[in-house]
Order: sequence, then C-alpha cells, then structure tokens
Amino acid sequence: MYLLENSALLTDFYELTMMQGYFYNNPKQEAVFEMLFRHNPFNGGYTIFAGLDNLLEFLEEIEFTGEDIDYLNSLGIFKSEFLDFLRGFRFKGTIYSVKEGSLIFPNEPVLRVHAGIIEAQLIESITLNILNFQSLIATKTARIVNAAGNGNVLEFGLRRAQGMNGAISGTRAAFIGGASGTSNTYAGKIFGIPVRGTMAHSWVMSFKSELEAFEKYSEIFPGSCVLLVDTFDTLKSGIPNAIKVFSKKDPHDGFMGIRIDSGDLEYLSKEARKMLDSAGLEHVKILVSSDLDEWIISHLKNSNVPVDAWGVGTKLITGDSEAALPGVYKITAKKEEGKSVPCIKISNNPNKITIPGIKNVMRFYNADHEMLGDLIFLEDEREELLERIGSKDKIYFNHLNSNYAHIELEEYTSTEILLSKVMHKGKRLLPEAPVQEHQTYKDKSFKSLHETYKRLLNPHIYKVSISTNLRDLKMKMINEVSL
Amino acid sequence: MYLLENSALLTDFYELTMMQGYFYNNPKQEAVFEMLFRHNPFNGGYTIFAGLDNLLEFLEEIEFTGEDIDYLNSLGIFKSEFLDFLRGFRFKGTIYSVKEGSLIFPNEPVLRVHAGIIEAQLIESITLNILNFQSLIATKTARIVNAAGNGNVLEFGLRRAQGMNGAISGTRAAFIGGASGTSNTYAGKIFGIPVRGTMAHSWVMSFKSELEAFEKYSEIFPGSCVLLVDTFDTLKSGIPNAIKVFSKKDPHDGFMGIRIDSGDLEYLSKEARKMLDSAGLEHVKILVSSDLDEWIISHLKNSNVPVDAWGVGTKLITGDSEAALPGVYKITAKKEEGKSVPCIKISNNPNKITIPGIKNVMRFYNADHEMLGDLIFLEDEREELLERIGSKDKIYFNHLNSNYAHIELEEYTSTEILLSKVMHKGKRLLPEAPVQEHQTYKDKSFKSLHETYKRLLNPHIYKVSISTNLRDLKMKMINEVSL
Repeated sequence: MYLLENSALLTDFYELTMMQGYFYNNPKQEAVFEMLFRHNPFNGGYTIFAGLDNLLEFLEEIEFTGEDIDYLNSLGIFKSEFLDFLRGFRFKGTIYSVKEGSLIFPNEPVLRVHAGIIEAQLIESITLNILNFQSLIATKTARIVNAAGNGNVLEFGLRRAQGMNGAISGTRAAFIGGASGTSNTYAGKIFGIPVRGTMAHSWVMSFKSELEAFEKYSEIFPGSCVLLVDTFDTLKSGIPNAIKVFSKKDPHDGFMGIRIDSGDLEYLSKEARKMLDSAGLEHVKILVSSDLDEWIISHLKNSNVPVDAWGVGTKLITGDSEAALPGVYKITAKKEEGKSVPCIKISNNPNKITIPGIKNVMRFYNADHEMLGDLIFLEDEREELLERIGSKDKIYFNHLNSNYAHIELEEYTSTEILLSKVMHKGKRLLPEAPVQEHQTYKDKSFKSLHETYKRLLNPHIYKVSISTNLRDLKMKMINEVSL
Repeated sequence: MYLLENSALLTDFYELTMMQGYFYNNPKQEAVFEMLFRHNPFNGGYTIFAGLDNLLEFLEEIEFTGEDIDYLNSLGIFKSEFLDFLRGFRFKGTIYSVKEGSLIFPNEPVLRVHAGIIEAQLIESITLNILNFQSLIATKTARIVNAAGNGNVLEFGLRRAQGMNGAISGTRAAFIGGASGTSNTYAGKIFGIPVRGTMAHSWVMSFKSELEAFEKYSEIFPGSCVLLVDTFDTLKSGIPNAIKVFSKKDPHDGFMGIRIDSGDLEYLSKEARKMLDSAGLEHVKILVSSDLDEWIISHLKNSNVPVDAWGVGTKLITGDSEAALPGVYKITAKKEEGKSVPCIKISNNPNKITIPGIKNVMRFYNADHEMLGDLIFLEDEREELLERIGSKDKIYFNHLNSNYAHIELEEYTSTEILLSKVMHKGKRLLPEAPVQEHQTYKDKSFKSLHETYKRLLNPHIYKVSISTNLRDLKMKMINEVSL
C-alpha cells in the first residue's frame, strides 16, 4: 500500500538536484533556514502553530532505502558518489521552534534549522507540508471554537478530507485548535481524542419506521443516544418520535440528544427546544451539523440558538475558504570561512524581501498577561536585549518595511522568547507530548490575546516588529545588493 | 509512525455504532448504496473520476487488528459478541463503478455497493475520503491543463498539500487529470510519473554570485538545466546571466530553460523571450510559476505569452477555491423477504431527495462521438432499454425533479453503459492499472465532450436525466412517504 511509509523521497525533486550540486561544490557548507508565513489565513488576526511533534518524528527517522536509491539512479542524472552519500544519510541538524499550540503571526520565524546546507535543503518540502497544513487546520478550528462560545465543536470531516492523512493529521490539528471530539475513529485511537457519532440517515431508512429505528438504537446504546431527526420531516416526524423514545427513559440514563442535519438551523433548533422542553425533556441536548463554519455559527449564536454542540466537517478539515497556509522556508545565514554571514533575498515587492540573519522572537505582555506585540531580534543581540528588559528600558518596535516608522514600548511587565531548541544534531530534545497538552497550551495562549484580534471581520492587526539592529542590518544589505 | 497503516478504523465512529445496531437487529440485511455528488466543483461543467484503484486495494486489505479491537473495547459501548465479529471481518461486497479518468456529472451514481448493510456501512467514510479528494484534484488539473493548451502543466504542490497523503494521492490524481510531471519525488517513484525541478532561490543565494550559481548548476547537470532567474532582478540580472551560461552550450546539449517565479508573468515572459531570441537562444524554454490556477493561465494565454510550461502548486494540489468534492453515499435499495425494495430519502429540498432503486447510467453519443447526454436507468430495465436502442427508438430523457419536463433523444448513434463490476464478493475483478492508462482514458473521454462544457465561466450544462420507469418509481415513492 503506497500510502504508508516515511520516506526521504517525500521531497521536491529540486531539493535532490540542489543536494547533488552542493555535494560537488561546497559539501560542508553550513546554513540557517527559517520558516515563516506572510499573512494569517482566512483574513484573520492570528495563526495557531501545529505539527511540530510529527515533523520531529519524521526527521529522526528519515532515510533513503535501497529502493529509493535505485529509483534515483534510474533517472540517469545522479552520480554514484552522491548516491552513496544518500545511502548513509541521516538528518543531523539542530532545530529551534515555537511550541505547538502557540499563537504565531506573519513575518516572524516560527522554526529555524541549523544544518549542513545539503540536509537543510532536503527537509524543506516535508517541513512545509506538515507545518503548513496542521497550522492551517488548528487555526480554522480555533476560529470555529471561538465562534461557538460555550458549545462543543466536534470534528466530522473524514469523508471530505484531502486523503487519509489529511483526515488523520487534520483531526490532530483540529483537536489542538480546540475541538472537543472527532468522528475519525482511527485518530481517536492513536491520539486519545474522544470519538463521537451515533447514526446516519441510512440507519433510519433501513427500518420499517423512524420510530422503530430510534427505539432499537436506544435499546442497544442505553448510555449515550443521539437521534438523527431529519430523515423524513424534522418537526412532524423526527422530533415527535425522539420525544416518544426519550420520554420512556430516566433523565439519568445517560447522554441524550437529537441531531439536526438539514434545513434552517435557527428555526428548527428553537422549535426543537420548545417541543423537548414541553415534553419535560430539558436534559436532551441539541446538536446541529450541515456545512457549518465559523461565520454561520457566529450568526446563529447571535440569534441565540439553543445549540449545545456543533458538528463541523468539510470546512474545518480542509480549511475552506483558504486551503493552504502559504508558509515558506528561506535561507537567512550561511557560514563563510568560519564566520556566519547573513543572507537576503531581494524582490521588487517589499513584503517579499527576506529578513536577514539568525533570529528569534520576543513576545511582550502587560500586567494582565495580555500580549502587546512581538519583536524579531538577532540571536547576537539577545543578551543586550535581555539587559534592557531587565532594567525596564523602552524597546524600539521598528516597522518591518518602513525604516522611519517605529513605536516605543514601555508598559510591558513580562516577556517570553518564542523559539527554543527542540532538536540537537538530529536527536530530538523535545519529547512527544499528548495532543491534550498542546490543546491546553493553545487555550492558555489564546486567553492572552485580546478579543479584538479574534474578530472574524477586520480584526485588529497584531504588532510584529524588528529590533533596531535588525532594521539596520536589513537596510545595509538592501543597499549593498541593489544593482 | 501513525501516518502509515491501512486500518478499518479509518471510518466515522457512527458507522461502528450503526454496525453494532445492525448486528443485533438484522445482521443479514443486504443493501445497495450508491455514491453520487450534487454539483461540479469550481462552478465547472464536468468532473473527472479518480481514486478507484486505491479504494479497491484498501477494501481488499481492510481488517481490524487486535489493537483496534482493544481500543473499541476500551470505549465501553461495544459488546463482546460484536467485537468478536469484527475480529474476523473482511469486506465481501460487490462493487460496480465507472472507470478512473471518466467524465462524471451531478446526480448520477458513479459507484454502487451491494453488500451486507453492516459492511456497506463500514466502508462509507473511506470510500468518500478517497474518491472525493482524488476526483476533486483530477478535475482541477483537467481545468488547468485545458487552459494551458499546448503548454505542459507540472504539479509542484507538495509543500502546500494537505498532509503527506494529500500530496501523494493528489499527485496521482493530478496526473490522471493531465499533468505532465511532478515535483513530488516519492510519487514519481511509486507511480512512474516524470519528476521535474532544478533549483530554488536558496541555491542561487548560497553562492557568491548568481552567475557562479548558474555556471555550477550547468556543469553538474549538463543534460537538463532550468535556471531560476528571479532571485535578484529578472531582467537586469537573472536573464543576462542565464544567457551567458546558455550561450556557451550547444543547442543540442540537452534541455535548457529559465523559470520565472514572481513579478508580472506576461511582461517578464515576453521580455525574456525577446532577450533569449536576440541572443540566438530560441531553443531555451520558458517555464513560469507563482500561485497559478486555471483562471490566471487562461488570461495569460489570451495575451499570447510565450510560455512553454506551467508549474502549478497550491491551487492545483488543494483544489482551491473549492477544497472538497461533496460526494455522498446513499442507501437506494434493501432486501426484504428475499425481494429487493427501493429506498428513498425525502427532503424539503427537491435536490436532496434521493433517486430510489438499483441504477446504472447510459451515455449517448452522436456520429462524431460527441457526448449528447446521460440517462440514469434501473438495472431492471436494462434489457428493455438496450432493445429500444438496438432498434433506434427515441429515448425519453426526463428531468430529475420536474415530472412534466422531458426531451426525446433521437439522433444518437452509439451508447455506453458507465458502471461495470469491479469487485465481486470482496475480490477485485479490475486489476490495478498504471496511472498512465487512466490519464490516456481521461484524455480520450475529454475529447468527446464539446468545448462549451469546458468553458471556465458559465459552462454549458450537461444533460443528466432519468428514464421514464425511474421517474415513475420516484414519484410513486414520494407520494407514499409524504405525510
């Protein structure tokens, strides 16, 4: 089954041609690459970082099998010396990263790779593949969960996900983003995420009547029974039949609910609540599904719908309306004659000029532990910056592209450095954590972000700035390179 | 590594609860399910079917491991008798399907499953997962390839795909849809798809100068050399340096090209062509990339850009702007006392009322082998229909929802029945074919579809109708069920 192996060939072909190129030119060249992205998805105000555990696991195991080497050899452009090198290849780089579940923002480095340029190049595609997708889905889910308020969000996307792994790693990311459960049984097993789901329309249709279908289900699953009420007619048939079944049960018999999967969800959920309450079934919960996303949920919540849980499928698991986080992986420094030299990529578009040098990010908080802004700085100036902070000096937040615009930050009370070492020379330092821990970390981080950044429409733009040293370095390099 | 196994748990949890329900109620119940979808993606005029080989492979191997059973047992709602049944479970159903690479249209069955309701239910989620995604990407690619005309389309999506399998099975589907090559080395190996790619900006930036980077690359890969010309300045630096390198080579030295990855692609490609031609380098090809899709390519082609190949990533591999094909899987018949009884699902929305009965699709062609329309019919009436066709009788094409609207088809010269048996009692009859064969089949099918259906904006709507018997059955059942 081709779907099922960790392979070093999960890389863009140009990584391999470049690797052979480096192998014959400067095989010992060391370099630093950084991953960043240039805008928040969904026109939103934030992004949630996810996927790191999976990436580290992949990198620890990455290798070329004999079959892989034979395949590359068959292409006729790789030399045997280089193929021999690949045969013994293991990733020996060092990686710094933000934590899974962290809030991240455009233009700041979220992952930094120090390695031989040959190996740093190989892992570009898989690094982006894993982190782009899981961060996209964690972000989409956080938006949906935030819109749902105190209602639970259940991830129901398996059938519409982009491939099996799109479903599995998507479910993982959705849970980090704040989902309460999933329909994906496999993901439930391997991640320990609560699994949810009871019946489809086909269950109801396979019996002689809807009432019989409901009764039989309730007999077999006395402890947890959610009845799907829209197979024939929600108000005239489904809910009255559900009421018949639930009325015979004791309210303490376990979880009871109905699911509405079509029609006008505001009208139907309000009518359903009234009908259930009139029958003394206040304890029966209402779950809705049907092509939901954060926008629809937000509008329904504004209408005070009595919904207890939201089943969200297609749009959560694919990140619709934006199906990819366009994260990039850029070289920012290289070693020349033993010295680290910053690199820059110039573009006619100022937003595409890279920020040179080996960098980290400092996040500033106020006394209420609210996030004030992020400062990108050079690792070289870390001590100096920490000293300034220790003595509560003001910090210059320089605009990323305009070299005259800056603000002075004074009212901060605490700070945090976002990237820390997670892999040292190919061995992971950060052990794999249960996804529940990442979800907890996301919840905690999310509380530090002011509501205005979470608005669906035109959110407040979070400040990401560069240090004065970094601004000066960037300007100097642009002036040197300009033709 | 959790990404890597075929598992029967890749199913929505409700399939398992329903399975236990059936197990205790009507364990021998036989049923027929059909997969269909309700609209073409991207507001387009057609869909390309893909993924069948992978589905059949999955179904032949599907089983519950001891670990899976232990997991289900730990949830506390499954009984040991049922878990014992799962322990020995193998899929023993019979499947009819259209071919991979086929043109398919809304509302017609594209796959039909005859099986015990327990097993038919289990495979719903994975069937939809595989076929929805691959059909989405094959369709997106067909649209892009059609827009590109005689230019090659290369799939460059690995880093933006939704997970590793989103990349691998996406590349497979893209090739079926008509891509000429891929950057995904792993997919190249397992499917025999040509791999493409030469260098990234990091290659250029790792050298002291752009010219040196180009020269070194050309030395190491004399037979195929595509130079990325936009690292510093496309017209002032990249193309002049590429010209210096290519001018030293013989035109017969192998493939030579430049890649432009940013900026105004019309302006830059036209200027590049002029500069290359003035230097006597008419044989050097121009490849462009940079967030392309069928719309951008179509507009550029209308401006007669001199582009030889298109590298398409994010929007091809994710199907952006529509990230899922919303295919569904519906019960359409069940056995009662040895007799097959049609099933229907009613809805207030006429488009969501299912078409009852065990069905197939007949496609009609004119003398030029152009497709005229598809007729959904009952398998029961197959002989009668074939007789009418044999004697060139007119065929009634009845509207799916309006029971008074129909057309009479007379001018057809040939027909084709779309669904054929591909798996019998759990054993596949259709052997796995190379993806190249599916691509060839797609190309051939695509030629039979008139250009008006391929228009990007407001395409002609292809006729899918139901036979008179089927219309009568549907009306009778709606009248019976209505409350």
